[in-house]
Amino acid sequence: MDSPDQTVEIEHTHVTFPEEMTLECGAVLRGMTVAYRTYGTLNAERSNAVLVCHALTGDQYVAERHPLTGKGGWWETVVGPGRPVDTDRFFVICVNVLGGCMGSTGPRSARDDVDIDPAPVWGTDFPPVTIGDMVRAQKRLIDHLGIARLFAVIGGSMGGMQVLEWAAKYPDAVFAAIPVATAAYHSAQNIAFHEVGRQAIFADPDWNGGRYWQIGKIPARGLAVARMCAHITYLSEQALTRKFGRRLQTAPKDPTEAISLFGDMFEVESYLRHQGSSFVHRFDANSYLTITRAMDYFDLAAEYGGDLAAAFRGTGTRFCIVSFTSDWLFPTRESRAIARALNRAAANVSFVEVPSDKGHDAFLLDEPAFHRILAGFLQGCAVHAGLPG
Amino acid sequence: MDSPDQTVEIEHTHVTFPEEMTLECGAVLRGMTVAYRTYGTLNAERSNAVLVCHALTGDQYVAERHPLTGKGGWWETVVGPGRPVDTDRFFVICVNVLGGCMGSTGPRSARDDVDIDPAPVWGTDFPPVTIGDMVRAQKRLIDHLGIARLFAVIGGSMGGMQVLEWAAKYPDAVFAAIPVATAAYHSAQNIAFHEVGRQAIFADPDWNGGRYWQIGKIPARGLAVARMCAHITYLSEQALTRKFGRRLQTAPKDPTEAISLFGDMFEVESYLRHQGSSFVHRFDANSYLTITRAMDYFDLAAEYGGDLAAAFRGTGTRFCIVSFTSDWLFPTRESRAIARALNRAAANVSFVEVPSDKGHDAFLLDEPAFHRILAGFLQGCAVHAGLPG
Repeated sequence: MDSPDQTVEIEHTHVTFPEEMTLECGAVLRGMTVAYRTYGTLNAERSNAVLVCHALTGDQYVAERHPLTGKGGWWETVVGPGRPVDTDRFFVICVNVLGGCMGSTGPRSARDDVDIDPAPVWGTDFPPVTIGDMVRAQKRLIDHLGIARLFAVIGGSMGGMQVLEWAAKYPDAVFAAIPVATAAYHSAQNIAFHEVGRQAIFADPDWNGGRYWQIGKIPARGLAVARMCAHITYLSEQALTRKFGRRLQTAPKDPTEAISLFGDMFEVESYLRHQGSSFVHRFDANSYLTITRAMDYFDLAAEYGGDLAAAFRGTGTRFCIVSFTSDWLFPTRESRAIARALNRAAANVSFVEVPSDKGHDAFLLDEPAFHRILAGFLQGCAVHAGLPG
Repeated sequence: MDSPDQTVEIEHTHVTFPEEMTLECGAVLRGMTVAYRTYGTLNAERSNAVLVCHALTGDQYVAERHPLTGKGGWWETVVGPGRPVDTDRFFVICVNVLGGCMGSTGPRSARDDVDIDPAPVWGTDFPPVTIGDMVRAQKRLIDHLGIARLFAVIGGSMGGMQVLEWAAKYPDAVFAAIPVATAAYHSAQNIAFHEVGRQAIFADPDWNGGRYWQIGKIPARGLAVARMCAHITYLSEQALTRKFGRRLQTAPKDPTEAISLFGDMFEVESYLRHQGSSFVHRFDANSYLTITRAMDYFDLAAEYGGDLAAAFRGTGTRFCIVSFTSDWLFPTRESRAIARALNRAAANVSFVEVPSDKGHDAFLLDEPAFHRILAGFLQGCAVHAGLPG
């Protein structure tokens, strides 16, 4: 796990589209690769496809062993045989987002705008992408797979932003939409936390102006600090207190980090350091910058004159919106604002706030109430869609 | 403001005590300097002294132009002629905490445990200090000034921790205690945020293992990231939204920070960057590490078998506890826990939660309701103490 280039070696399942892709910023990708994974079987009517959208640091390995970390899929609590998104029934697709680092076109890809052989990688010159760009890339894949209408689109956090974008832009292609622990725009506080992470990356000397691969390095310490800061926002105060409280453990002897009292450190410090250091081996710093920017710029209502309801007017999609009580990164009030906008648009919408003390991360964890809601909503939608039971 | 050594040049008002000071960690300071400022006049009975305790990045310049930044005192809304802590009536003392960088003994001081001339500075070898150590240093100054009993001790955030420590350890020396926006222990979440800041400092190459002065540098980028992260926790989500929302401004052209969409950046990003970069010229990184550690280790009840009430049993001190509704760093529930402990200890206690959307920083800002509470409580105490009106 020590080689910074390790991920480059992995061959991800992918499609490369020869057509140009014009991004919202105006930049043109001459070709675009979309890496993805599927689970289950597409039925003859092509009517049982469920698109799962991943969050900031997620990827397409939603329900299987991760090829890089060796860990289980990031949403095996939700996606799999007999799980709420049942792969015995549904054909599940998960796509690495545009700008990501697990096989889809992103900062680590070779430039397609220069005639140099071999082409250098994009790095920081990769154009900024938006949640809208990510969704249009996914739409190309769905078209490519011959799926006219997705039975459902589901995702949490940034995945939920993609769900909202899908429902707004392609209402006829989305039978059911499940945005979880998300918002229709990124708040000033969330932008601020992202900016701290970006500044930590910029402050790392191994960042090397964004061209770290040229010196054979990764900005590991800066990226670790970014991850640590973000990780706190994923947990609730209660979860941190329950998991760690003020318990101490023996501090490692590290002459550069001398100041500890009586040779101890808090368990929560050790946990955060581990979160930071393990992250840098599976994620690319330029992708982190690109994707945090995409989240920050997300503001669905802004495209509709500030009226979120206008994004969904006339929609036939069935919505199930889920928030968690202790999520302070995407608090319930932001989900409620989506539900109200959908009500104003006369949409078919359920909204559930799930009691949980696990914070934003609750959507990834074992939350039986959330899973029951998901399973029930999908079963109801299956009946309405005429899916075989 | 560009010289990292600028603060070293300033002559702060101070006392150097020849007696040894044994710290809680067991280390011994052979001598100790306490830098302080006073405002107003000590009356003949020496009964009108108010000790103001500063927060993490504060200092003794509470109610006057700061010698380094040229800005006004950090608590001029509260301390001054005609203000709630009225310097026409009270003799106000404010002490730079032990471990600080504005004249009191701290990491920037010359070592006193080596026989080298000139002695090198402590740097990261400065022993860890506690809130208790800070208060014992202040007590030496108070004794030196010939004050047997402080009329009041007041402070917010880490200043409030010192107030609680004063009241617990020297009940006979504290007539009135006003802990504001504070807690009797530092929570796991707060420790986690501090740890992110420390890791950002450690990640800066100019940190140089804590001996940055030896290379003529300061870990400016790391310290700035630490400050940015902390600053978010000082504000409420509402305050950030009100001040900045999602407003954009033109981004400076910086080739190392390339990724911005359409050349814009969010105003909140610009604000945070300014907060970070202006901070590094007035604060020492090793002091930041020392003082954040002191806050993290604070747990007053732990010294009393886990029973906070035991810290205050039999106290004659009058307490006024203040919290702010939108403070999520030191939320009201932590102030309420103090109030309940004081009630169990049969202490004289008022507890007020002030409605404010300004977050933790509310205690520093223009909050008329808070100021009325302060003035009223002090006036009531003055009557009880028999202070001339």
